[in-house]
Amino acid sequence: MTVPMQTMTETKWTFRGNGGLEAASAITVRGILDQVMANLNGGDRRAIVPLGQGDPSAFPCFRTARVAEDAVVDAVRSAEFNCYAPTVGILPARRAIADHLSRDLPYKLSPDDVYLTIGGTQAIEVVVTALARPGANILLPRPGYPCYVARAALCGLEVRYFDLLPDKGWEVDLERVEDLADANTVVMVIINPGNPCGTVFSYQHLKEIAETARKLGIMVIADEVYDHLAFRDTPFVPMGVFASITPVLTVGSLSKRWIVPGWRLGWVATNDPSGFLKDTGVVESIVGFLNVSPDPATFVQAAIPQILKRTNEEFFSKVLRTLREAADICYDKIREMPCFTCPKRPEGSMFAMVKLNSSLLEDIEDDLDFCVKLAREESVVVLPGMALGMKNWLRITFAVEPASLEDGLERMKAFCQRHVKKQHQRSIRSLELYCNL
Amino acid sequence: MTVPMQTMTETKWTFRGNGGLEAASAITVRGILDQVMANLNGGDRRAIVPLGQGDPSAFPCFRTARVAEDAVVDAVRSAEFNCYAPTVGILPARRAIADHLSRDLPYKLSPDDVYLTIGGTQAIEVVVTALARPGANILLPRPGYPCYVARAALCGLEVRYFDLLPDKGWEVDLERVEDLADANTVVMVIINPGNPCGTVFSYQHLKEIAETARKLGIMVIADEVYDHLAFRDTPFVPMGVFASITPVLTVGSLSKRWIVPGWRLGWVATNDPSGFLKDTGVVESIVGFLNVSPDPATFVQAAIPQILKRTNEEFFSKVLRTLREAADICYDKIREMPCFTCPKRPEGSMFAMVKLNSSLLEDIEDDLDFCVKLAREESVVVLPGMALGMKNWLRITFAVEPASLEDGLERMKAFCQRHVKKQHQRSIRSLELYCNL
Repeated sequence: MTVPMQTMTETKWTFRGNGGLEAASAITVRGILDQVMANLNGGDRRAIVPLGQGDPSAFPCFRTARVAEDAVVDAVRSAEFNCYAPTVGILPARRAIADHLSRDLPYKLSPDDVYLTIGGTQAIEVVVTALARPGANILLPRPGYPCYVARAALCGLEVRYFDLLPDKGWEVDLERVEDLADANTVVMVIINPGNPCGTVFSYQHLKEIAETARKLGIMVIADEVYDHLAFRDTPFVPMGVFASITPVLTVGSLSKRWIVPGWRLGWVATNDPSGFLKDTGVVESIVGFLNVSPDPATFVQAAIPQILKRTNEEFFSKVLRTLREAADICYDKIREMPCFTCPKRPEGSMFAMVKLNSSLLEDIEDDLDFCVKLAREESVVVLPGMALGMKNWLRITFAVEPASLEDGLERMKAFCQRHVKKQHQRSIRSLELYCNL
Repeated sequence: MTVPMQTMTETKWTFRGNGGLEAASAITVRGILDQVMANLNGGDRRAIVPLGQGDPSAFPCFRTARVAEDAVVDAVRSAEFNCYAPTVGILPARRAIADHLSRDLPYKLSPDDVYLTIGGTQAIEVVVTALARPGANILLPRPGYPCYVARAALCGLEVRYFDLLPDKGWEVDLERVEDLADANTVVMVIINPGNPCGTVFSYQHLKEIAETARKLGIMVIADEVYDHLAFRDTPFVPMGVFASITPVLTVGSLSKRWIVPGWRLGWVATNDPSGFLKDTGVVESIVGFLNVSPDPATFVQAAIPQILKRTNEEFFSKVLRTLREAADICYDKIREMPCFTCPKRPEGSMFAMVKLNSSLLEDIEDDLDFCVKLAREESVVVLPGMALGMKNWLRITFAVEPASLEDGLERMKAFCQRHVKKQHQRSIRSLELYCNL
């Protein structure tokens, strides 16, 4: 080469990184979990217990339906789906999802109401970006899912938070929503079944949310990535049921119900019987976004009709049964530990939200510190609440093999006992005796 | 429902679509092709000849390697890759791609230099967004690939165009590059092998590009999505060979060489032996972008090592042979048509760039009009040059089954003959007789 290396260091390079990206990605579930897991002790011979992420696919009891695997394999073997797909997704898949979702709605979705996305992540990207405009703001739940925050930051939407109320079963603080909203508020996000709170909103509460939104003239993004993962008395009701009150963009996915987050197949559904999403250009923006964005793998799209048609009730009820048992184990064990408070027994999704009473513990600064030390000492991974906007809370995933879950929670208990402040030890012990623990 | 429908129309809705998205997606290859294909005549019993897109996967002679299909099927059947992947991609896949690319480089890439993406589309999204900052500009080739324009618009990068010179074998007009660049220019993009010109840049020209970039203090994005699809005398040389002159971000993909664009697996490679991309925060921005973006399907990632290891030379050479034959058919037939000029016999990628001499034709306004009427009358789909920044040019894909290609080109010839201006008909006929056509 004619240019010696020395001169290269003398060159004044004009390029540098995009600072906005680092800021937007500073808080992500995977980023924070990476930070926690960097503290795992390689010398610990015990298995790592992963209670951090909503991904139980590695556990045999959560293996996806065989028919779903067959559908993907058949699509690959056909060699008919090595091609590019239309940007909105292939028609048979859109039709199958429209029919699937319509079963729970008082009206029928058409294939044109469904847009295929690369998992829930891209669906969130689509709906948030499609609604962005200068000066606008978005209302997000706290605790919530940080992906919305990152995406809003990247497209210049101001974020305002409303609380989910632990004392009211994690329902939305609708009074606060009304206070927060102004003429520039365009949308509020709800996540139901709840990540991270494990809640399932009632029909009545969902209706109140829709009515509040309509009163404010805003629409609703309904994140239903955990749809149908409701395992107690409150049934799952899709927000689209209330779409004649206010337009709803639904975010959905195969990832959780079929336990295949790595297949990267999700969707956005426009629940809009009155046509406001078309009239206001939102539909056009969704299509515009998808036109310049990557698509889910074509053969996974092609597998959708068979996956939806052939997965039987037995698969779903086995998953629900396992989740319910695991949620009970989690909630009951957590109640044995004085340094934790869990406001509500989980009834859906894969998570419990747990308050850390760090004043009972010595040498534990906050939730992140707790998780870092827990990983280091007990090889148990839990998500610090700061990742979800709730300092000194923890999100515990109960969607793991029950035996692993019990093991992990026992280790957490041992960890807490070891770190409890000396002056509390005696009173805690007597409390435990009293409770016959 | 308590809210009657009448009141809904009276509500003053605050939300509306994001105008920026429609503007950014106004010109895309798929969008323009959709517009052309909307004019296909359903009554035509002849097969449609698709010369619009670089996706020959539907043709039996371009079916991907059986070992590639096997690798994906094995990964699905293992059920080990239903899980989320790390945001940068799984390590074995990154390592396999690093080793694969290193074979053509004077230094060795590490797995940390490779970031998996959802096809070339997301790779372009990553590299353009990672370099965006207020006031910065990017230099793009004309003709070029509209995805870069859309992505630059979405992240606020100003676009400046340099020409590829048809009279110089579509080489980069490097003098113009120097004129265009200023202190806010951060990067120039080259696409090699060339989309849409079918060129393969020589070692010497690539070196001159690198030296120009270094002189200007800018880096190079090398779009090598068509890497190794060079089927004449000029061999493919990766731009990374010159990375000690200027840092290079390489965009690559399985899509074209393995003919599986629907599998959606691409990558970004940092070719940066001097570490400037790290020092300037570009690497951090790439990771930041991927942290908040969707990933390629985990089981496709898992298939990469087997795909790269087991695909044999026979598969690649058959593809190259077929492409060369098809390129010759295309170029020779085009030369028979006076209303076209093709400056250079294609030597790589899947495309020929053809000038439309519309002054010879009556009732054809421009390239888009030509393509619309050609679709309607002959069921042949070709991309108008306006999609690539070149009005009154056409991009013809020769990557189709040779028999279909001949059929399509014959139909184009008949179309041109039918639309030629009366005063030209006699002279064209004598020219044809003279040329013994």
